[in-house]
Amino acid sequence: MTINVGIMGYGTIGKRVADAVILQKDMKLAGVMAHSYNFRIRLAHERGIPVFAQSEETRKVLKQEGIETSGMTDDLLRTSDIMVDASPKPYGLANREKLYKPNKVKAVFQGGEKDDVGQVSFNAQSNYEDAVDKDYVRVVSCNTTGLSRSLQALHKAFSIEIARATLVRRAADPSNVKRGPVNAIVPAMELPSHHGPDVRTVIHDLEVFTTAMIVPTTLMHLHTLHVKLKKQAEVDEILDVFNRTTRLMVMQTSAGISSTAGILEYAKDRGSKRGDMMDLAVWDKGVGLHHNEVFFMQAVHQESIVVPENIDAIRAMMGEHDAHASIVATNRALGLHNPERFDY
Amino acid sequence: MTINVGIMGYGTIGKRVADAVILQKDMKLAGVMAHSYNFRIRLAHERGIPVFAQSEETRKVLKQEGIETSGMTDDLLRTSDIMVDASPKPYGLANREKLYKPNKVKAVFQGGEKDDVGQVSFNAQSNYEDAVDKDYVRVVSCNTTGLSRSLQALHKAFSIEIARATLVRRAADPSNVKRGPVNAIVPAMELPSHHGPDVRTVIHDLEVFTTAMIVPTTLMHLHTLHVKLKKQAEVDEILDVFNRTTRLMVMQTSAGISSTAGILEYAKDRGSKRGDMMDLAVWDKGVGLHHNEVFFMQAVHQESIVVPENIDAIRAMMGEHDAHASIVATNRALGLHNPERFDY
Amino acid sequence: MTINVGIMGYGTIGKRVADAVILQKDMKLAGVMAHSYNFRIRLAHERGIPVFAQSEETRKVLKQEGIETSGMTDDLLRTSDIMVDASPKPYGLANREKLYKPNKVKAVFQGGEKDDVGQVSFNAQSNYEDAVDKDYVRVVSCNTTGLSRSLQALHKAFSIEIARATLVRRAADPSNVKRGPVNAIVPAMELPSHHGPDVRTVIHDLEVFTTAMIVPTTLMHLHTLHVKLKKQAEVDEILDVFNRTTRLMVMQTSAGISSTAGILEYAKDRGSKRGDMMDLAVWDKGVGLHHNEVFFMQAVHQESIVVPENIDAIRAMMGEHDAHASIVATNRALGLHNPERFDY
Amino acid sequence: MTINVGIMGYGTIGKRVADAVILQKDMKLAGVMAHSYNFRIRLAHERGIPVFAQSEETRKVLKQEGIETSGMTDDLLRTSDIMVDASPKPYGLANREKLYKPNKVKAVFQGGEKDDVGQVSFNAQSNYEDAVDKDYVRVVSCNTTGLSRSLQALHKAFSIEIARATLVRRAADPSNVKRGPVNAIVPAMELPSHHGPDVRTVIHDLEVFTTAMIVPTTLMHLHTLHVKLKKQAEVDEILDVFNRTTRLMVMQTSAGISSTAGILEYAKDRGSKRGDMMDLAVWDKGVGLHHNEVFFMQAVHQESIVVPENIDAIRAMMGEHDAHASIVATNRALGLHNPERFDY
Repeated sequence: MTINVGIMGYGTIGKRVADAVILQKDMKLAGVMAHSYNFRIRLAHERGIPVFAQSEETRKVLKQEGIETSGMTDDLLRTSDIMVDASPKPYGLANREKLYKPNKVKAVFQGGEKDDVGQVSFNAQSNYEDAVDKDYVRVVSCNTTGLSRSLQALHKAFSIEIARATLVRRAADPSNVKRGPVNAIVPAMELPSHHGPDVRTVIHDLEVFTTAMIVPTTLMHLHTLHVKLKKQAEVDEILDVFNRTTRLMVMQTSAGISSTAGILEYAKDRGSKRGDMMDLAVWDKGVGLHHNEVFFMQAVHQESIVVPENIDAIRAMMGEHDAHASIVATNRALGLHNPERFDY
Repeated sequence: MTINVGIMGYGTIGKRVADAVILQKDMKLAGVMAHSYNFRIRLAHERGIPVFAQSEETRKVLKQEGIETSGMTDDLLRTSDIMVDASPKPYGLANREKLYKPNKVKAVFQGGEKDDVGQVSFNAQSNYEDAVDKDYVRVVSCNTTGLSRSLQALHKAFSIEIARATLVRRAADPSNVKRGPVNAIVPAMELPSHHGPDVRTVIHDLEVFTTAMIVPTTLMHLHTLHVKLKKQAEVDEILDVFNRTTRLMVMQTSAGISSTAGILEYAKDRGSKRGDMMDLAVWDKGVGLHHNEVFFMQAVHQESIVVPENIDAIRAMMGEHDAHASIVATNRALGLHNPERFDY
Repeated sequence: MTINVGIMGYGTIGKRVADAVILQKDMKLAGVMAHSYNFRIRLAHERGIPVFAQSEETRKVLKQEGIETSGMTDDLLRTSDIMVDASPKPYGLANREKLYKPNKVKAVFQGGEKDDVGQVSFNAQSNYEDAVDKDYVRVVSCNTTGLSRSLQALHKAFSIEIARATLVRRAADPSNVKRGPVNAIVPAMELPSHHGPDVRTVIHDLEVFTTAMIVPTTLMHLHTLHVKLKKQAEVDEILDVFNRTTRLMVMQTSAGISSTAGILEYAKDRGSKRGDMMDLAVWDKGVGLHHNEVFFMQAVHQESIVVPENIDAIRAMMGEHDAHASIVATNRALGLHNPERFDY
Repeated sequence: MTINVGIMGYGTIGKRVADAVILQKDMKLAGVMAHSYNFRIRLAHERGIPVFAQSEETRKVLKQEGIETSGMTDDLLRTSDIMVDASPKPYGLANREKLYKPNKVKAVFQGGEKDDVGQVSFNAQSNYEDAVDKDYVRVVSCNTTGLSRSLQALHKAFSIEIARATLVRRAADPSNVKRGPVNAIVPAMELPSHHGPDVRTVIHDLEVFTTAMIVPTTLMHLHTLHVKLKKQAEVDEILDVFNRTTRLMVMQTSAGISSTAGILEYAKDRGSKRGDMMDLAVWDKGVGLHHNEVFFMQAVHQESIVVPENIDAIRAMMGEHDAHASIVATNRALGLHNPERFDY
């Protein structure tokens, strides 16, 4: 059986999920919704992806640009088994009520939406099972996804007593030239930042506290963590756990990967589309130990880290019960490094 | 006949030229020289590219990392018909004297080297013929390549009286985290900047004057030009010339491509490896006219714009006389947009 | 006679003009309007500057913070001979109609407003006389002020045939952390940019064309100019003219002032409040000549360059006929370098 | 008795300490050493500060620029009771051996030097007494000074069990346009970073662990801290302690001070020379509590925070036993906010 997937919101996340859907053997891209004319829609059209118009106005503009649409919103909803909603933040909930519920279409939402947009918040490694057969699932945000990957692994392996994280967030995505700061650090006056509580929507029993700030970079978020373990561990054991964790790549500092830019240079050289880095990146020389506290630093590629999670969410919601099977299939299709890893 | 190409200096340019060589039907990558261990060398090795060691020390380090080398410098020189030297700036000339001349190997050098490292300075569209059968050729720098592409087209079509350009240069390549400025503009106290005279090494009769500065960005250089034409032209005619110029892409401003970041987002979405943009980019709405002066803005992807030029230089030096044939073959192999364009 | 000056809009420009008014012997700061509570208002209050509330709501909030206001909008208008309106862009015109006209108070507006907000657009060196006895005057923007200072000097000394300028604009003021770009160059798709025509509002007979872009820096704008002179000149003569131009400082490159950051470091070391640089800065080694074309680079401190112009506009509007007298008085009070210069 | 102070190294720190010395009633600036000609030396000369030449070569260059020197290195050493050495990092130790020891001159060193350059590492609030009558004292670095100010206060008030800090460091000082990164985050692969151990050179019994990174900003460092207290405390009590700590300013978030740029805008508006912020800045809304762990964020102005420490170090070394007297005198002379605070 092939799963027909429609995409609502064809921006940073939407376009990547669309490409990822195309690569899955068990999925078919039903089409993408166009809200306006732009180069993303043009390229989708040139590649033969069906484009649907959100309004009559949009349809006309696209036609003027030589883009024949395959229908309107209803048409895409009708031909889709499930929608991935990657609209900007406040719209997911409204779309659920206005579009998905009345049309009885399942939908995956993104982490910018509030928790209750979905029946469950989702991170494939942490709680795949909770999403099986659900109608509405929210994939947690890029930062929460990154935290969940490393913390669930440590929690499973060593049991975490408390986790403390500082999130140093990128200011804007590369192509968003409107947002700053240009040359300042902006602390989040929210204690704890919302990321800590958000991690607990997928790892319920984790004691975690986060602080956050924004710095003038566009590439990746960087997290520093210190985590008190219940079980004593050595640095090598921790690295071993990380090496066996799916969608987490231990970066070799001695190979010259010494910054977030270095990570993305590596990802570009690997040949992943758009230079994306869907793995959480942890530096090997950035892991340290002080008694039973582990310190480490991880980098999150905000544009792509949630892409594999969206794919797994689709499979779970459409009835696939085997987390391992879905995760490995996704990893393989996306060309992720060491796709079979699944101890954590 | 297959041309065996060796790469000396496997950094930003070297690794891209290596990939480009692999894509050419008439070329074979003989191997790359490793100066030290790093992630670029690891990835080359993982892809089956022969790696040669610059010293016994390097050979040992690579061996420790599990990388078996295919020989030393002399071995690569022996199996290569031609070397592409993409070493850091001062080393090309020394390599010519110490390595290429004694071993009777041809060599392509990059634009950071002084003019006289080669028998000719090279831009495929401007002076392909000059490089035919030569032993040493210098591909001009990224900025000069960009200027040459648009100016030779305008010069050929309308005859340029004078050209004036301001070059707003990126501070550092993305993965070079040592260089600044972080938050300042640094004017080049050189009048004219060296780029103007450098253009004249490939378009000899052009009257051009340039000023330059460095700004805190890593993505692309941006040039503003005003060019006085001998022949009156309309904006549409100028855009038409640009649309018929090889390796120059007119960006559609109305499609939301409004910054250097927008251009690279487009390139990533197109699927080019590393998100590279080998075309010179000119904005359609950035072209204006005032009497017989044309004003326009162009963006140069410093990491990749010279890659096709290196390939063409190889072919010319190895005896291919037909510029058109080489340029189109290169464009096609690299997946460039509209590869057959060749009016300019 | 003492001129009573009120300030509407106590932000980047407003607070600086207020400080400048305090320093003038013939002026008195009647007070500043508070739109909301913030640290600028707190510091004004701590220094004894009368604060007026724009609304009853604001008055209450200020009172809660321990700031007793001196009245409401009408009270400030009544005690002011003239208002300096430094409100954000669209509000100046509305204020003229709603506040200044009915209350018969003169007003100085800023360059963000449209040309017709004032009876005249103003640059002290270029057209002081036009503002004498006027009721509404618009001080041109920072970029236009910078262009006017150097171009009127060259025009007067050598007569300009044509002037071409590229304006490399800062992304945001330092404390504005919302605006970008963070890491891209954004060209202005406006040809000519509005700055060229704006210069002609103060130097009517100048043939000038400008292009513009935005880069990720907060410190200063940088302009590159090439100007064709009707009269032949040597570099030394041009520097001599610049050295005799009021509010223009020739920066000594050999003293290590090699960037916009270097200029502001110099300004900080000189001890000017806030590290401001009210002079237009031209680098001595950045001036070059090619036949009768002069090339130069100038930097504009967007936060403060218009401050002296606001002061002179006040004096002109209040009846002072002598441009020289006003400019020198302003320069001295503000501690500008070489305040008596006035050949240009 | 007046203390004669000489300055070796007239850069970012040296020039500020020189200005601070001038402002002290009990000190006299004997002069500054010039290593080369630059705008700082020119301005020092214009202000009547005696300039000494480090070499005959320098003396000649300065003479050519119209700067008559007051002698050579030996002359400054002879007329100084104590030197403040603010040379770039590796030179302090060499200067001690070659210059200060043979000439029997006391010297204050900066935190870039290794610990053992001085007999004691110094932070005025933490261990003033240790420096009394010493010959060589090292003022700890900007980051360590910031950490010491807040941590010693909390330690004294509530007794710290463990302190964990993430240091988000600025890439370069504003006028240093050579250093990056431009658009990346560079983690320090040092666990703990050297700042933690460095804090223990002044607060010996503190259990503290730090991690660090560099981000593309020039303004200030930002630290996030979580500190486990032995004694339970409320947020208000913690803020009360901070408000009573010398050289620590609690920033009012509701006044619109929401970033490092906001802090420096406030400092500029206060009128401090160069817009310096010698106080450690802690945001009121950035302090939170979770059981007995306190979370807070603080910003450090790397260019100026150590200036008052240098002054106090001078007094201690010259025999002043009363820490309180020295600190208050320094604070008053430098115009610091609430100079008498001294509970912590």
